Amino acid sequence: MISNQVDTAVTKELAVNILRTKLSDIPEEVKEHGKKSMLNWLGVAVGASRHESVEIVLGLNEELSWNEDVTILGRSEKADLLNAVLINGMSSHIFDFDDTHLDTIHHPSGPVAPVVFALGEKYDVDMDTLLLAFILGCEVELRISNAVYPSHYDLGWHITSTAGVFGAATAAAIILDLDEETLLNSLGLAGTQASGLREMFGTMTKPFHPGKAAQNGLLAALLAKKGFTSSKQVLDAKRGFANVLAPEHNLEEVNMKWGEQWELLKNSFKPYACGIVLHPSIDSCIALGKEYNADDVEKIEITVNPYVLELTGKKTPKTGLEGKFSIYHSGTVGFLYGKAGEEEYGDDVVNSEAVLTFREKIVPNVDDSFREDEAVAVVTLKDGTQKEHRVKHATGSVDNPMTQADLEEKFRNLTIPVIGEAKTESLISNMMEWEEHRSLAPILEKAR
Amino acid sequence: MISNQVDTAVTKELAVNILRTKLSDIPEEVKEHGKKSMLNWLGVAVGASRHESVEIVLGLNEELSWNEDVTILGRSEKADLLNAVLINGMSSHIFDFDDTHLDTIHHPSGPVAPVVFALGEKYDVDMDTLLLAFILGCEVELRISNAVYPSHYDLGWHITSTAGVFGAATAAAIILDLDEETLLNSLGLAGTQASGLREMFGTMTKPFHPGKAAQNGLLAALLAKKGFTSSKQVLDAKRGFANVLAPEHNLEEVNMKWGEQWELLKNSFKPYACGIVLHPSIDSCIALGKEYNADDVEKIEITVNPYVLELTGKKTPKTGLEGKFSIYHSGTVGFLYGKAGEEEYGDDVVNSEAVLTFREKIVPNVDDSFREDEAVAVVTLKDGTQKEHRVKHATGSVDNPMTQADLEEKFRNLTIPVIGEAKTESLISNMMEWEEHRSLAPILEKAR
Repeated sequence: MISNQVDTAVTKELAVNILRTKLSDIPEEVKEHGKKSMLNWLGVAVGASRHESVEIVLGLNEELSWNEDVTILGRSEKADLLNAVLINGMSSHIFDFDDTHLDTIHHPSGPVAPVVFALGEKYDVDMDTLLLAFILGCEVELRISNAVYPSHYDLGWHITSTAGVFGAATAAAIILDLDEETLLNSLGLAGTQASGLREMFGTMTKPFHPGKAAQNGLLAALLAKKGFTSSKQVLDAKRGFANVLAPEHNLEEVNMKWGEQWELLKNSFKPYACGIVLHPSIDSCIALGKEYNADDVEKIEITVNPYVLELTGKKTPKTGLEGKFSIYHSGTVGFLYGKAGEEEYGDDVVNSEAVLTFREKIVPNVDDSFREDEAVAVVTLKDGTQKEHRVKHATGSVDNPMTQADLEEKFRNLTIPVIGEAKTESLISNMMEWEEHRSLAPILEKAR
Repeated sequence: MISNQVDTAVTKELAVNILRTKLSDIPEEVKEHGKKSMLNWLGVAVGASRHESVEIVLGLNEELSWNEDVTILGRSEKADLLNAVLINGMSSHIFDFDDTHLDTIHHPSGPVAPVVFALGEKYDVDMDTLLLAFILGCEVELRISNAVYPSHYDLGWHITSTAGVFGAATAAAIILDLDEETLLNSLGLAGTQASGLREMFGTMTKPFHPGKAAQNGLLAALLAKKGFTSSKQVLDAKRGFANVLAPEHNLEEVNMKWGEQWELLKNSFKPYACGIVLHPSIDSCIALGKEYNADDVEKIEITVNPYVLELTGKKTPKTGLEGKFSIYHSGTVGFLYGKAGEEEYGDDVVNSEAVLTFREKIVPNVDDSFREDEAVAVVTLKDGTQKEHRVKHATGSVDNPMTQADLEEKFRNLTIPVIGEAKTESLISNMMEWEEHRSLAPILEKAR
């Protein structure tokens, strides 16, 4: 870690790297992962689009009477460019069910995808440009995250929004066709708006952060395109982003192995709508639930890393949100329903008879030798039979990613309650056949 | 200085203090200073309203097609609430000629007054409520600045926007009639948007900061009023504003002597459109210019603190902006024109024959024993006569504030070129008779 370094070349080198990268330079695997990331993002955004916090932000239209020309995902309303990206960026983080770059706890799609979708819709942009913008936006924010993590996050910054604003500005810059000078101004304007405190976690303001980062980054690029001037060395200046917001940082990570190594490939998707530490336990209970009937089960002992139980030891959760911090509830829904999506963390499910009965059978144990992404569940049946299921790496971890089928199933669970089955199935195929469309239009008409 | 303290009562106590303060609790002197501050703010905002950066932000209407219901000062265009406060907050800082709380280098009106004017116009709010909102908004941002200065500023934060966003949210909260809980949410939402890097100084992004702080603070209050939730202890939480953005801070300053001591009284107004360190030199040259003819002058020796010359030693400025960093140019216009407003820092004036000739006669000296706000100018005439003029405290410093007449003259110089003489004179009396109007309407119709 090099602290307080001043190397005025970093921001400029980044701009050069961004502008020299064409879609044809990007490996197929990265493009596929980009499309998966957007599919996952679209699912969580549509899924949360009826949430109270979305209603509140939509209510700003009473004061603003905004121009209704950009789609609000999962809704019939529209908004102007800047308000649409605020809302869509927020929706996608409400369930805490969006993608995660595990190295930096950054959720990359939230600040970037709303900008890609909003500009793509408004200016009828071709799909190749949009895919390039999404991938480069994510790459930029994740590389900046790498450069400032962990000191930046530990200090209290919500890295998804603080680094995310650079991703949003980059994606917008690609679509708006900025040149080197205006891209640098756009990054400057973005960085000076970087904000978002971890203190907000647990309130509506947490998901507000990626939405605001998307909005601020898009504003930066729009202004820069029109000639607004800013610092050309926002990342590396003495009083720039890294020195002011990260006690320790290594800005070399921003441009290192550009075009050879892709941070986006480390982006992972959550199968379950709760903290990642519960995922191996849920995996194991799902596996057991496929083999046994609930009525035959005497108990399920789940062994996990002690830290897991510390975070998720809530024995009698009363609400869905509390259920997300309960290994008892989470193991139960895994066993009973074979999934743990947002629906399984509804207040009604947490308080249902079947769940209340079964969760008494969950018995957690801790073992220091277990990693956080591993678990062993041992079921004991009423006839005395025992069976063990061991999870070495939870589904959704880098070592055991969700399959395309898993992702599609997650998407269905999120979107069918909002837009119905027909639109959902059509959306899934449309999203994965990204380059075959002339524009976003067929996708957007189904995502409302 | 207490570092990293955690005292969860500070934010709550601030909210209680804000809500219990009525206009009748505020001393007459503070109210008068509030009106002066708004007069000064209005002048600099109208004066800079034709600047290129304003044109650029107004150009966003191409993409946004915003609702045109709030006045853009000095212009015929209007914008929606949030975009209007962005533009008006920016205009007022473009010339770097707005008010200054010298203890913290904070420019208090920039983030607060746009919110007061925009909400006042849109909802036809009574003038007492608007004055209360302005004064409390300034008081909150300045007290927060006191609590985090200097470590926060030294680290690289533009304190006018980072602390200013709390002032904007407070002013909006008063006008929107928030209760304690929603005010706390509003402060939380404001604090999590706190941003603005000093690295941006010297670019259009510097004045963008107070505009963005006004916009973010207003957005915070609008959302909080509708029920959006946030942290209730944004100032004092472990990962709250003070701990994350200020290496050292003393949060006791936020509520100390509330209602007894008024930070707004320490707000000062600049007589000259350049850095404050040049003000005593200009004062002394203005005094000499009243007594002598330029043709009779052989030389003027100006003695100042060494730091002053370090900042302003540019001997042959080519542009108005460079002129602001030149004691040669600044002393010259003081002597020749008796003022040093934005006009005297025009490119044409910097390159005019009369100025080029006279500035050769300015001879700066340094003396360690001089304070930054003092200067001595000694004129030597061609006939050998010498005369000294000593400035103990520059005009505009706390010890030698601008008079009401000075302020009005500054206002005239700024606004007559934009809105003409008749509107200017009428505006001056309207602003100082604040409480006599039923609403802002008579003021706004002249400020366009």
